[in-house]
Amino acid sequence: MNNKMREAFQKIDGGLFSSVSKADVGDAYDNMQKDGVRLMAWADPFYPDSSIPEHVKKATIKVIENGFSSHYTVPIGNMVLKQEISKKLLKYNGIKADPKRNILITPGSDSGLFYAMLPFVQNGDEIMIVDPSYPNNFQNTDILGGVIVRVPVYEENNFQLNINEFKKRLTDKTKMVVLTNPNNPTTTVYRRECLEQLRDFIVENDLILVVDQAFEMPVFDDIEMVTVAALEGMWERTLTVFSLSKGMGLSGYRVGYIVADDKIMDKLYAATVSVLGATNTAAQIGCIEAMKDDSFLEEYFKVHLERRDMVYNLLKDVPGIVVHKSESGFLSWINVSKLGSSQEIVDYLIKEAKVAVNIGEPYGLQGEGYIRIVHGVLGSTDDLRGCIEDIKKALTKLAYSKGYKGV
Amino acid sequence: MNNKMREAFQKIDGGLFSSVSKADVGDAYDNMQKDGVRLMAWADPFYPDSSIPEHVKKATIKVIENGFSSHYTVPIGNMVLKQEISKKLLKYNGIKADPKRNILITPGSDSGLFYAMLPFVQNGDEIMIVDPSYPNNFQNTDILGGVIVRVPVYEENNFQLNINEFKKRLTDKTKMVVLTNPNNPTTTVYRRECLEQLRDFIVENDLILVVDQAFEMPVFDDIEMVTVAALEGMWERTLTVFSLSKGMGLSGYRVGYIVADDKIMDKLYAATVSVLGATNTAAQIGCIEAMKDDSFLEEYFKVHLERRDMVYNLLKDVPGIVVHKSESGFLSWINVSKLGSSQEIVDYLIKEAKVAVNIGEPYGLQGEGYIRIVHGVLGSTDDLRGCIEDIKKALTKLAYSKGYKGV
Ligand SMILES: Cc1ncc(COP(=O)(O)O)c(C=O)c1O
Ligand SMILES: Cc1ncc(COP(=O)(O)O)c(C=O)c1O
Repeated sequence: MNNKMREAFQKIDGGLFSSVSKADVGDAYDNMQKDGVRLMAWADPFYPDSSIPEHVKKATIKVIENGFSSHYTVPIGNMVLKQEISKKLLKYNGIKADPKRNILITPGSDSGLFYAMLPFVQNGDEIMIVDPSYPNNFQNTDILGGVIVRVPVYEENNFQLNINEFKKRLTDKTKMVVLTNPNNPTTTVYRRECLEQLRDFIVENDLILVVDQAFEMPVFDDIEMVTVAALEGMWERTLTVFSLSKGMGLSGYRVGYIVADDKIMDKLYAATVSVLGATNTAAQIGCIEAMKDDSFLEEYFKVHLERRDMVYNLLKDVPGIVVHKSESGFLSWINVSKLGSSQEIVDYLIKEAKVAVNIGEPYGLQGEGYIRIVHGVLGSTDDLRGCIEDIKKALTKLAYSKGYKGV
Repeated sequence: MNNKMREAFQKIDGGLFSSVSKADVGDAYDNMQKDGVRLMAWADPFYPDSSIPEHVKKATIKVIENGFSSHYTVPIGNMVLKQEISKKLLKYNGIKADPKRNILITPGSDSGLFYAMLPFVQNGDEIMIVDPSYPNNFQNTDILGGVIVRVPVYEENNFQLNINEFKKRLTDKTKMVVLTNPNNPTTTVYRRECLEQLRDFIVENDLILVVDQAFEMPVFDDIEMVTVAALEGMWERTLTVFSLSKGMGLSGYRVGYIVADDKIMDKLYAATVSVLGATNTAAQIGCIEAMKDDSFLEEYFKVHLERRDMVYNLLKDVPGIVVHKSESGFLSWINVSKLGSSQEIVDYLIKEAKVAVNIGEPYGLQGEGYIRIVHGVLGSTDDLRGCIEDIKKALTKLAYSKGYKGV
């Protein structure tokens, strides 16, 4: 039957007939965990330790207890949740969004990102995607029949956007730019200046922008987090995808949202039930409370900042690697190319340090020679420190064996 | 931006700029409920009353209480849940499914149905869809760039499949048959004989079958429920979509699953994270308990059977309409064409009987002149009786006014 599939599906492997390095298929990870390997490869805050704010817990339990959670919420989403989100959008993103016309609740932002791209991408449309960035950007484009146009960002430039890299790839088939801001895996928060140049480029060439802001919080060092949809001229041509999985740490709840102009949203509403279905009822009610009282974010911010600094300070002097101070989130993106391929280093760390981190390749061609460490895992910062120290020891040993002796 | 969209999206309306009759957008339903109109238009068991088996409730609450529910489950699904589903598939569907190779958990079966079609449907592929059937079948085909080929089923034939209707629509572009079995809205359970003919047709012409079995339970009057994937020759070309929303009544939990041969499943696993993302963690854990101890289904069966009979007996003698005894589920599909258009009758019932039921058109061209009543709503059968009696009174009054005087 596979020869009857879309080309994109013909090419991909889910790990049943070959071994794949995806974290999310097969039982490789389960088996590793049984072997005592610590998982630092899922962008899931405080995994696997208990973490969920008490007031969110209470609200979620209440609606299960009273039995209402067994019923559908309308596919386009719980209206009270959308009202709370609209307040947050005004305060945090500088966007005036009407809960009835501009917000769609999605069962997580993965499906939200796919759904934001679906109406537009088809038949050889060229889609500009920053490389490296979130793997789904590439796979979605492929599945929908678009052509991936990789726009590289470089370590030398702190992984910031360079508008010339966009300009020189423009053709009359260019339809959309997909941006992950802040970027995953690099943690880069794109600066206002870059984004204004991108805005000009997009408006001039009548393109569509999909921005994935799953990692919009936490952002460190008072770097300004700019929501592109709020820049003049962008509202009517931007779909912004948000998530409660990262900053709010509610990954398992599976709640995200799309924000867009009502002319676009009208079309998304019309097909939500077909493509996404409804979002979990109890989770949405829990999320209302998380949005209403988000004071727990302060504590999360402190924890993530402390960890960011700890990881940077522990790893920055390991010879043969390049570590940047992360600008956002709870990830580190590390250049290990002098020590080995991305896959080699990941395999080595599993054996030597008993930690599983991500190889760089799925994030794009620029991911070769990099590894991604999720340093937002574990409830206790001390436990995390243990993992990072093990990584440090292992990488230092490897560096020494390759003749790198430190700065 | 809308002129940049796929054709299917250009054509559709979400209700922001026009009034649409979809139940799932806008706040028309909310407003009706405020006016005392009872909602009998969502296929959501016992809505809006509390309903969720105690052991399922307990398990769901536990994993929220202990905090683990904030973490992702792997996108392809909770393995214990898949093991329980595989037992159910063997016992109930006659399918031997390996939990590691043949089952994918989806965030509800709406997205599951879309995902089952996505790898195959593109570029003018002709997709045969029974008319009337579940509206998503048509919209999914459209969105994915397929061509809808409607295969009518008729009241005269008890809405059963007639293989000649398929044969005469076959072209060299025919790629897939989409079947809702049991059918929504007609409640028809397709008979083995019909399905074997369909099997021969599909195998001979090397087609793919997607079967949506969301309504596989309850089935009444000892009618045999045949899972087509279990028929010889069909396993390797069938994707079966299941749901815990209907028979098990866990609509708001948003858990469904796709079952397919591992060659197909390998491809689905490979892109699950991009298209669907993961399914809610707590809901999956609750569903494990629902699958492990499904004795509550006996009680649900009794309730639905009692209601089916009650509705049939109350409405069968109303002049000018045709009511069939429902074969499955908790719906009634009623021919009201002598009394008015589907829309007219629905509007009339809202005003006259204070109940909101579905117009027939979204289910296909054959839906004109029919209404769908969800008679599985409300916790109490007496409350339901009240609604049905109000419908009876209103329709009888209308029939009299049009000169129909009963049998
Ligand atoms: C950049 C980015 N976007 C979106 C997602 C998806 O998150 P979710 O589906 O949990 O909202 C992730 C998860 O890793 C991510 O890293
Ligand atoms: C025939 C059919 N399939 C699938 C669904 C979707 O159900 P869910 O997404 O809740 O699993 C429905 C819901 O009404 C349905 O009627």
